[in-house]
Amino acid sequence: MKIEELGEFGLIRHLTQTVELKNDSTVKGVSDDCAVLHFAEDKDTLVTTDLLLEGVHFDLTYVPLKHLGYKSAIVNFSDVYAMGGMPRQITVSLGLSQRFSVEDMDEFYDGLRLACDKYGVDIVGGDTSSSMTGLTVSITCIGEVERGRAVYRNGARPTDILCVSGNLGAAYMGLQLLEREKDVYYRQLQEHKGQETLEAAQPDFAGKEYLLERQLKPEARRDVVMRLRELGIQPTAMMDISDGLSSELMHICEQSHCGCRIYEEHIPLDYETASQAEEFNMNVITCALNGGEDYELLFAIPLADKDRIAQVEDVRMIGYVTKPEDGRVLVTRDGSQFDLKAQGWNPLK
Amino acid sequence: MKIEELGEFGLIRHLTQTVELKNDSTVKGVSDDCAVLHFAEDKDTLVTTDLLLEGVHFDLTYVPLKHLGYKSAIVNFSDVYAMGGMPRQITVSLGLSQRFSVEDMDEFYDGLRLACDKYGVDIVGGDTSSSMTGLTVSITCIGEVERGRAVYRNGARPTDILCVSGNLGAAYMGLQLLEREKDVYYRQLQEHKGQETLEAAQPDFAGKEYLLERQLKPEARRDVVMRLRELGIQPTAMMDISDGLSSELMHICEQSHCGCRIYEEHIPLDYETASQAEEFNMNVITCALNGGEDYELLFAIPLADKDRIAQVEDVRMIGYVTKPEDGRVLVTRDGSQFDLKAQGWNPLK
Repeated sequence: MKIEELGEFGLIRHLTQTVELKNDSTVKGVSDDCAVLHFAEDKDTLVTTDLLLEGVHFDLTYVPLKHLGYKSAIVNFSDVYAMGGMPRQITVSLGLSQRFSVEDMDEFYDGLRLACDKYGVDIVGGDTSSSMTGLTVSITCIGEVERGRAVYRNGARPTDILCVSGNLGAAYMGLQLLEREKDVYYRQLQEHKGQETLEAAQPDFAGKEYLLERQLKPEARRDVVMRLRELGIQPTAMMDISDGLSSELMHICEQSHCGCRIYEEHIPLDYETASQAEEFNMNVITCALNGGEDYELLFAIPLADKDRIAQVEDVRMIGYVTKPEDGRVLVTRDGSQFDLKAQGWNPLK
Repeated sequence: MKIEELGEFGLIRHLTQTVELKNDSTVKGVSDDCAVLHFAEDKDTLVTTDLLLEGVHFDLTYVPLKHLGYKSAIVNFSDVYAMGGMPRQITVSLGLSQRFSVEDMDEFYDGLRLACDKYGVDIVGGDTSSSMTGLTVSITCIGEVERGRAVYRNGARPTDILCVSGNLGAAYMGLQLLEREKDVYYRQLQEHKGQETLEAAQPDFAGKEYLLERQLKPEARRDVVMRLRELGIQPTAMMDISDGLSSELMHICEQSHCGCRIYEEHIPLDYETASQAEEFNMNVITCALNGGEDYELLFAIPLADKDRIAQVEDVRMIGYVTKPEDGRVLVTRDGSQFDLKAQGWNPLK
């Protein structure tokens, strides 16, 4: 069905009619000039926003719309967890070119709803419009955190332990795989030009499911934030790893006016990431440091919490915070030292 | 200066370094994963968002970037006032194609800051990215309202008086003027093709300043919301007029399950709007009903508040709320009755 047939308000109604509100803090959702929320006196409100543009942030040749919807929500939730908070509401703005149908938007919303249901978030508003070119997705997420307990990037102190959740570089490897298969597909298209049908070889992703999932359907680390709370560990600084570990370490060092020292041997890697890096003839540590889109948490905790953090599953201590004059250092397995550089993905290039 | 030279974080720093926070509710602004806000227990939080796309919502051939920045903020503030609230914070996401320079973004931010300073709003976050085509602006605005006092669209009751602030159709006329001059300019370009220089006749907008200002630099009606508060008038329904009076009346009637009866002779028009409509050979009432982008307030108040509303400057009573079975009616000067239709601007066409 063409989106024009429903019109702006019809489309919004169609997409949001089955939305059920889950949070006490949501007073009123979609359908008025604003959503109305209420947070208790002992909470602070968190706000984050992400703009995703077709051709820059995602490629619909290999990203299904349902996955895009899911991921668009997750990347925002991840920013709220990175403050030690819980996401509660999102608004969703879409710019749609003519090639998108109502069914396409249903798919996108299916993914969005799936993420919202899983993480307990309400869809409370948005804006829908036509676009001259491609798909534009702009999501704003509202969350809450105990008053005064938001974790910033600027509180890390020398001797603090640096920790990372999960493992790094897998999403980047997934992207390389998808890009390679896309190139193969286009080469085949070229070779078969003019022929009636193209029986393109289906890409063989057997054994690579984990890497693809990390790229196409990432998760946000609510579990880690909740576990830290249970154990009474308050990080001194935290952020999510979206542009690569190296780049995020730079942010924490800059804003906390400190240095850092991390150890190659402690950087968490998955077996599939390492084996795929070898196949691509890439350095897996470089991928882990600069790959991006991991949506894992990087955080600093006081040295006194060392024993407690050791109890947390799926969190690794990768090094510690130093004085600013000690620089930002990676110690390799053979004991060499390198200056860390932020080679993360630059969305303005 | 090329935006690449600064990079994403450099650009954000450059644009937001002079931002001063004005509101107690802003705990932390730009520079972390989220902004942190705190609203008092006796307040509800309002959230609204708008996506503006080049070529769909604005045309940079005649819209200066400073004006675009100003207007992008105002259209969001207007949604918060339409709930009876006060805007407090915005986040600003920008997608920029290669043709934009740092100086361009300075201009856009100048306009944005001007609007924020005037209306007492803090810029607390955002996202900046490259775009394949044109400029994308996505703004989310957070506001506050006394707890339980948000004015929805669904509370209008038969016998309520319908009111409109300011006057209607002027922004639409301003747009027609700008579009006409753009056509003239392109025709001249065509005629002078191949010539060394083009001395295009500067468009003569003398006497049309008001119409252009309504289109290029609209204001939001904080004054009306504050005056209603002072007088203790609580509207039963309210919204801002962005898609045209007709379309907005439909929303209120639908959501309040009521009809309406408005009078042509009471629809507020400015002299310049009427005179320009005549020049264009357009029906000025049609422009006022369907033009859009007025950013005036449409609201319903109990009949008992009639004398009090009469004291409010720049607000006109245009008719009243009826039972649903009485339909949605426009009574013309000669006493004829017409069914109102929503012919407002459809952003999906």
